[in-house]
Amino acid sequence: MSTELKWTKTDQLKPKPDETSLPFGRIFTDYMLKVTYDEGQGWSEPHILPYGPIELDPAAMVLHYGQTVFEGLKAYRTTDGHVQLFRPDENMKRMNRSHRRMSIPEFDEDRMLKALIELVNIEKDWVPSHEGTSLYIRPFVISTEANLAVHPSKSYEYYIILSPVGSYYPEGINPVKIQVEDEFTRAVKGGTGTAKTGGNYSAGYNAQEKASKSGHAQVLWLDAIEKQYIEEVGSMNVLFKIDGEIVTPALSGSILEGVTRKSILELLHSWDIPVLERKISIRELIQAQKDGTLEEAFGAGTAAVVSPIGSFTYKGESYQVQSGETGELTKKLYETITGIQTGKIEDPFDWTIKL
Amino acid sequence: MSTELKWTKTDQLKPKPDETSLPFGRIFTDYMLKVTYDEGQGWSEPHILPYGPIELDPAAMVLHYGQTVFEGLKAYRTTDGHVQLFRPDENMKRMNRSHRRMSIPEFDEDRMLKALIELVNIEKDWVPSHEGTSLYIRPFVISTEANLAVHPSKSYEYYIILSPVGSYYPEGINPVKIQVEDEFTRAVKGGTGTAKTGGNYSAGYNAQEKASKSGHAQVLWLDAIEKQYIEEVGSMNVLFKIDGEIVTPALSGSILEGVTRKSILELLHSWDIPVLERKISIRELIQAQKDGTLEEAFGAGTAAVVSPIGSFTYKGESYQVQSGETGELTKKLYETITGIQTGKIEDPFDWTIKL
Ligand SMILES: Cc1ncc(COP(=O)(O)O)c(C=O)c1O
Ligand SMILES: Cc1ncc(COP(=O)(O)O)c(C=O)c1O
Repeated sequence: MSTELKWTKTDQLKPKPDETSLPFGRIFTDYMLKVTYDEGQGWSEPHILPYGPIELDPAAMVLHYGQTVFEGLKAYRTTDGHVQLFRPDENMKRMNRSHRRMSIPEFDEDRMLKALIELVNIEKDWVPSHEGTSLYIRPFVISTEANLAVHPSKSYEYYIILSPVGSYYPEGINPVKIQVEDEFTRAVKGGTGTAKTGGNYSAGYNAQEKASKSGHAQVLWLDAIEKQYIEEVGSMNVLFKIDGEIVTPALSGSILEGVTRKSILELLHSWDIPVLERKISIRELIQAQKDGTLEEAFGAGTAAVVSPIGSFTYKGESYQVQSGETGELTKKLYETITGIQTGKIEDPFDWTIKL
Repeated sequence: MSTELKWTKTDQLKPKPDETSLPFGRIFTDYMLKVTYDEGQGWSEPHILPYGPIELDPAAMVLHYGQTVFEGLKAYRTTDGHVQLFRPDENMKRMNRSHRRMSIPEFDEDRMLKALIELVNIEKDWVPSHEGTSLYIRPFVISTEANLAVHPSKSYEYYIILSPVGSYYPEGINPVKIQVEDEFTRAVKGGTGTAKTGGNYSAGYNAQEKASKSGHAQVLWLDAIEKQYIEEVGSMNVLFKIDGEIVTPALSGSILEGVTRKSILELLHSWDIPVLERKISIRELIQAQKDGTLEEAFGAGTAAVVSPIGSFTYKGESYQVQSGETGELTKKLYETITGIQTGKIEDPFDWTIKL
């Protein structure tokens, strides 16, 4: 392996984990990538160095004011043994959008994508090949100025860490129960919901704990203002098939624009299946369920690709989505996208980048 | 100095800074306090150790999902040379409230207050005595589990760091121009606005930068839902004197409950000045300004105590608050509270704790 980047090597390489029992996000590879930002100097050259602790001043802003941004994408082992990425340019673009919202200086997307690819290339052997596994890629930026004044940091550190992860569906894809949350809020227009920033995620823990206690796998988020319009499910976008049409909440200013959602919409378009991006209220969803026209419902995100919804609970009442089984279209989307990601299916959209 | 706590000493004490030119939150004392939490073991014994870097795994949850809480209070040098704290029990209580909202395990408030007092006691010599100066106390909790799964951390670190800070008003208390923000949102009911958690603060940077560019010192936040009702100003609560009455936004679920606000309400009550905690819209404020009944307007928080508002700009139109000078009541509140804090005025409320 070679790279044009600055690379501090270690000869203490870790043993590779058992591919059949990989957890999510707890095992990390040998190297990470680091880029620093200092006011007046801009973003530094990327540096690949051994995975290891980050040292922060106790007054580092990230520990106080949550000025952070992250991304999440995956590298896949193809059936013929190659490694490829799925639309990583979209993640770099979204990262810069998140930077803007969080008052973090933007970076050069192409340069950062190149650095990401070089890191994955060095860590290629860590990309597992067992069915459903992948190498999860986590770029993130933290604000590092040691200053308790409430204002944007003058210095940042950008890292990429890599984690081999198991299948989201070790026992096959199965519909889950979700809880419609009508008290807690994830995000609101004018807030940070369109950015992938830390605070949005811990903001959801209370609701997630409430949902778990009542036997639900995920929270279905409603809009903060009227508590009527559906926004996302857990940390995924959400789509419904109602009376033959696909409906998904429009990007209204409080929803994260998912790469999976975008890919699904493009796929459906290519299949001539009608798609509507619009407001959809929980009442409309319940009505469709009662009328028998709510045919499918599923979350969409990098981790699960699609996550079928078997039933949803709203104000104590539960509603089953059709038979409670994974829908035909949900299955087809899952197979097509994972097929493209792993090279089993041809990629007519140029979504994949082969290493 | 002695303490019952575990104390790792250093003999490399830093020189004390010049008290006449202290910045905010950039100079730190010799020691910090640390308490750790591990699932199954609860909060550990506090440990006082030399101020120095925190080591975090790159996957530590605080760097990704913003599960953090902080507090801010001050130790004051009294005119007779003692050191005292202002209502620190309120900060410990609020911290636990913030913990609940952020799914962080609660701690024993009394024990944590005792530990805080012991740390300040050890660092007593760092409490400056120059007019308007104080020792800023920053307790904070970070989530440290190395795990990229989106759920509450299983381990935490709690720290207190101390920073001698200068006067908020080196050139005397002066009214500022504020910008009424009608696009960006700080917080919404059901969200995290009632908790002192990092994400709320960086969420405001875009708006703060916009306000600064147009020559305004602070942002006046409106409610997220109707963009009509006044919530806070910058990182302070806000109060108005309208036609002889004090009006302040009620704690509606998206406002942080300030210790200064609470103290002001208690003071006003003791002075028999009518106070209303209720909704107040920007329209009402503009109408009062036009009618000549908007007598005073000010922010309230630990950093500034009170911060008079000279004028506010809403949708391009500017409105001056009376003469644009600091109001009589604003001044009296400032003098009374700072008087109690520094021991110049007797403390009939038992707000202060002498070390
Ligand atoms: C809040 C939120 N919504 C939706 C998504 C789905 O986005 P993507 O398909 O890019 O993974 C994510 C993240 O992955 C998310 O964090
Ligand atoms: C958002 C916000 N509002 C209000 C306040 C005022 O609270 P206190 O008077 O306790 O300092 C603070 C913090 O200090 C704050 O961060």
